[in-house]
Amino acid sequence: MADWTDCLNFGISIAKQASETILVAYHQQKDVKLKSSSADLVTETDQRVEAILISAIRSKYPQHRFIGEESVAAGEHLELTDCPTWIIDPIDGTVNFVHRFPFVAVSIAFTVNKQTEFGIVYSCVEDKLFHAQRGRGAFLNGDPLRASGQQDISRCVVVTEIGAERDDLALSTMTSNIFRLLKLPVHGVRALGTAAVDMCQVATGGADAYYHIGMHCWDIAASAIIVQEAGGVVMDTDGSAFDMMSRRVIAASSSAVANHIAQVIQAFPCRRDDKVSV
Amino acid sequence: MADWTDCLNFGISIAKQASETILVAYHQQKDVKLKSSSADLVTETDQRVEAILISAIRSKYPQHRFIGEESVAAGEHLELTDCPTWIIDPIDGTVNFVHRFPFVAVSIAFTVNKQTEFGIVYSCVEDKLFHAQRGRGAFLNGDPLRASGQQDISRCVVVTEIGAERDDLALSTMTSNIFRLLKLPVHGVRALGTAAVDMCQVATGGADAYYHIGMHCWDIAASAIIVQEAGGVVMDTDGSAFDMMSRRVIAASSSAVANHIAQVIQAFPCRRDDKVSV
Repeated sequence: MADWTDCLNFGISIAKQASETILVAYHQQKDVKLKSSSADLVTETDQRVEAILISAIRSKYPQHRFIGEESVAAGEHLELTDCPTWIIDPIDGTVNFVHRFPFVAVSIAFTVNKQTEFGIVYSCVEDKLFHAQRGRGAFLNGDPLRASGQQDISRCVVVTEIGAERDDLALSTMTSNIFRLLKLPVHGVRALGTAAVDMCQVATGGADAYYHIGMHCWDIAASAIIVQEAGGVVMDTDGSAFDMMSRRVIAASSSAVANHIAQVIQAFPCRRDDKVSV
Repeated sequence: MADWTDCLNFGISIAKQASETILVAYHQQKDVKLKSSSADLVTETDQRVEAILISAIRSKYPQHRFIGEESVAAGEHLELTDCPTWIIDPIDGTVNFVHRFPFVAVSIAFTVNKQTEFGIVYSCVEDKLFHAQRGRGAFLNGDPLRASGQQDISRCVVVTEIGAERDDLALSTMTSNIFRLLKLPVHGVRALGTAAVDMCQVATGGADAYYHIGMHCWDIAASAIIVQEAGGVVMDTDGSAFDMMSRRVIAASSSAVANHIAQVIQAFPCRRDDKVSV
């Protein structure tokens, strides 16, 4: 069986390098332009950081493939193959980045035969490095992580995002999902503004569940394996197996909690990440 | 004019001492009992920390009065007088504390003649100490803070909480407020789970607005002066002057943003903090 530890260590080193570029820009004035909506800002830094990451990986691993947020936004076809593939979000939490709300992360996942081998989420402003390797556990700054194991939804802190999707159906579904969860009740609902860092809270045990509809594979591919390796559960919001291309995810402390959330929340239609344009 | 700098410095020193007790307990198993709802947990640590703070202040300033979350919960009458008064929340973000979601704060405000002279918010897990003194600016770990000055609601990151109030009217009002803000649109909605720390984000400029209905005076008295001294604006959700007893607050980067939020959101009835029981 192949061991991808060298790739993991390389990924960690370039995530740290990328964060230096991010932090310099974070503290400067930023030249922001509008992407799909006012909630979905893209900056020059996003594009520059993704180029730096891909260039570094390509030099070392010329056969590897890439799925990157900015490359896809620029029109590259998104297809997850069996080849070793790096799935990259250069800055998860772009709105936070632009505003200097202090949660922004580099997210890097690595898949082989469509299976995630490792994930890295570096929350740069907080200086929190989350990582996990398949079968080898999850870690925060080197310390092992353990999900809470909570089985009872009524004792859960739930993290979610109301993301870039702003049509009436998406917005009303998202706000009514929050209403229904609070009625169960749950202990509380939180939102940090980055899917990757939100989801890692489940791995720490600080939150018991995270769900999101409308995010993309690069937002959650890395944090999904971090949650799983911390003993948590990841599934689709319809209760089926996790599919990083479906744009729907529940991460939870236990199957009981994940299934309960799947029963309570409603989804709205999202075009799959890997749907080929006609 | 009296100078309350000695009291401020004493407040900062005891907030740091209190945080040591909080952090030890944060990393241990906690014996939690239910207060008014599952969202409103109270721990032995809350009560112990408040007792430590009040005891220390009373030794040094025997004439001063107190308004403390735990003392009020234990039945003490809440009345803001002209006397020098310390308004204390020993652990703001109790649900976070119990779950180890990493945002919990000691909040201490100090009033004389019903006017706030200084405020201290120590977000212990993050090791972020916010403070402000009337007329002398706001600071984070000693560095001066400046609100964003944003005038345009559609470019704002807004922080809020869906708090301990869980009846249908409160919940539906809170979720529909989020819906209406996102439709304006705003750039995003965030929730860290502690009113004090949420509100300090406006002082840093990382968020442009915060609003909350249903919190108590000890949750926001300190952060209100921190926002004001950072150049931000604090008002009631009905657009009138800020009243720390009204259980309604908007903190914002500018009057324009605060007034826009006041027009958009709806309130639900809350009994005033200083309403005398009959």
